[in-house]
Amino acid sequence: MLDLEIKGMTCGHCVRAVTRAVQTLDPAATVAIDLPTGHARIETAQSTQAIATAIRAEGYEVNVV
Amino acid sequence: MLDLEIKGMTCGHCVRAVTRAVQTLDPAATVAIDLPTGHARIETAQSTQAIATAIRAEGYEVNVV
Repeated sequence: MLDLEIKGMTCGHCVRAVTRAVQTLDPAATVAIDLPTGHARIETAQSTQAIATAIRAEGYEVNVV
Repeated sequence: MLDLEIKGMTCGHCVRAVTRAVQTLDPAATVAIDLPTGHARIETAQSTQAIATAIRAEGYEVNVV
């Protein structure tokens, strides 16, 4: 389970863009994002580094918490 | 040419969602949206009513200006 803090998401489309980026990398991933806080809990076999890179490529800032 | 004021767009994904909604209705439409102001200029053969309805269906508030 990864806990990430994502900055820059402003709407439901952003949440979807992040979810899609993660699931493109790992179709089996489960993604739970809280838009107001930017907190994301991601269940995945991929590395934190790979997931963070995919989210950053969508234009968001990512910090591991 | 329609001039609309759209409320609720917060990011580029929102601009894309609105553009897509209009162009689903009228593939030949040209859509120019200014995100900070919410002002949209839409060149289309469709009625204002039809365009506004399509944008509202995406979850945004629309006023004709």
